[in-house]
Amino acid sequence: MHNLPIGIFDSGVGGLTVLKEMAAVMPRESFLYLGDTARLPYGTKSPETVLEYAKNAAGFLTNQGVKCLVVACNTASSVAIDYLSKQLAPIPIIGVVEAGVTATLESMPEGIVGVLATQGTVASQTYSLGFKKLAPNLQVIEWPCSLLVALAEEGWVKGPLVEAILKELLQEVIRCDQDKKLSTIILGCTHFPVFISVFQQIFSKRVNIINSAEAVTRQVKKLLIAKGLVSSSQTKGEIKYYATDNKQRFVEIAQIFLNKELSDKQVNLADCISSSNIKLSNIRAG
Amino acid sequence: MHNLPIGIFDSGVGGLTVLKEMAAVMPRESFLYLGDTARLPYGTKSPETVLEYAKNAAGFLTNQGVKCLVVACNTASSVAIDYLSKQLAPIPIIGVVEAGVTATLESMPEGIVGVLATQGTVASQTYSLGFKKLAPNLQVIEWPCSLLVALAEEGWVKGPLVEAILKELLQEVIRCDQDKKLSTIILGCTHFPVFISVFQQIFSKRVNIINSAEAVTRQVKKLLIAKGLVSSSQTKGEIKYYATDNKQRFVEIAQIFLNKELSDKQVNLADCISSSNIKLSNIRAG
Repeated sequence: MHNLPIGIFDSGVGGLTVLKEMAAVMPRESFLYLGDTARLPYGTKSPETVLEYAKNAAGFLTNQGVKCLVVACNTASSVAIDYLSKQLAPIPIIGVVEAGVTATLESMPEGIVGVLATQGTVASQTYSLGFKKLAPNLQVIEWPCSLLVALAEEGWVKGPLVEAILKELLQEVIRCDQDKKLSTIILGCTHFPVFISVFQQIFSKRVNIINSAEAVTRQVKKLLIAKGLVSSSQTKGEIKYYATDNKQRFVEIAQIFLNKELSDKQVNLADCISSSNIKLSNIRAG
Repeated sequence: MHNLPIGIFDSGVGGLTVLKEMAAVMPRESFLYLGDTARLPYGTKSPETVLEYAKNAAGFLTNQGVKCLVVACNTASSVAIDYLSKQLAPIPIIGVVEAGVTATLESMPEGIVGVLATQGTVASQTYSLGFKKLAPNLQVIEWPCSLLVALAEEGWVKGPLVEAILKELLQEVIRCDQDKKLSTIILGCTHFPVFISVFQQIFSKRVNIINSAEAVTRQVKKLLIAKGLVSSSQTKGEIKYYATDNKQRFVEIAQIFLNKELSDKQVNLADCISSSNIKLSNIRAG
């Protein structure tokens, strides 16, 4: 069991920031990454639809055999984590939202926690609701900045023009920082860690930037140790990539998020709709 | 028949630039607009899937009764126009791609024709293939600039920062203009007419900018006259809006494209999947 890969899924390429961080911190682990590029974006779809997609993706990965599952998509994480945790037990499931919330609370924030996220995540109040359970008095503001997704996918991640765009887009958050009211920024979309150097430029040093890719990696590492699931391999782990559509675009954009080139041959086309749901129900029954 | 509305559909809100132009030029006509917001974007989906969606949308509109149908989505226009023309005859169908190609050829371009479009439209070579049939020696270059869609939906459509972004994004096209090789720019995405003033700034006066919203409007007007379908109404026509999901976001973004406010009550939720396909097959049989 402990030498099985870690499964990760996202609606597309954004979750590769999570994969990159995990592979750097835990180089001996193997990974299966699934990007549901046929059905992205999840953020604008209804919760019922996203749950269905998440079930498909989780089923596809667990059918290949994984020792734990990371939901590296904020929308799917907020909608499907409870359901998947129950259905896939004893395989542990970790989501980016919970990881971000936990990491924020561990830093004991004094002042407003700002969440930068897509329109979809903001509309679903994923983070506000996540914090409400654990720290009801914390002031959380979610800011929609979907434009950052398009910028990231264009490979525009640093430089003066990108800085100008982010300053314009985030002017309300920056004002909140200037007024010394802001304690924390959560990067509430897996695309956003690529802008980390720009964020560090435009926010004051007082502001704690929570990178969910790092937060989820810490949680997974802790979990593998606690459950005795750390890989015993003495060599570098393997990474397998799956996309549900448009391999070429996946390969092109993956480069921005992984900071290294992928070849077309490294990415497999996955039909996660027809191949997974039935077997997932087997898992349920079993 | 001549007092029936004109049907228009798009994957989302972009087609509203077409509606706005048509309503301005033909104020006595009535319109039914359908934005398939539940399933956008079309540009990243396979041709089979887009054809299915286009059939649903066309079926929904023709079932309400329309005197002609405008496909105001570049992807759907390239994939579905031949099929829909046959199936829906005698209802005439006009697509943005054909209208843009026709308008360009009427201007007798000397030099490169540049098409600005989304990644999806560029990958499908919609415009190149459209021109190949009619003017095989014309040099057509398609440039992907999906980032403009996100900018438009953010309402960033003019000002110095937007100009800087467009200059950076379109630097190859601008170089082509500076070298005096560029004759024409086609706005090959229905989102792009909102940037018209910026395009006029950054391209030299020699370059002919083809706005598909204007091109399609001219074609529809010509067709209505030719077929005796011009509305005989003496008063302003009615516009009905339908979206397949997320009415609130539709209303918010519509403002940018229509240049006027829409109320939530003006937009109806349309279930175009279950309501249309069967009846569309009736039309086929009839």
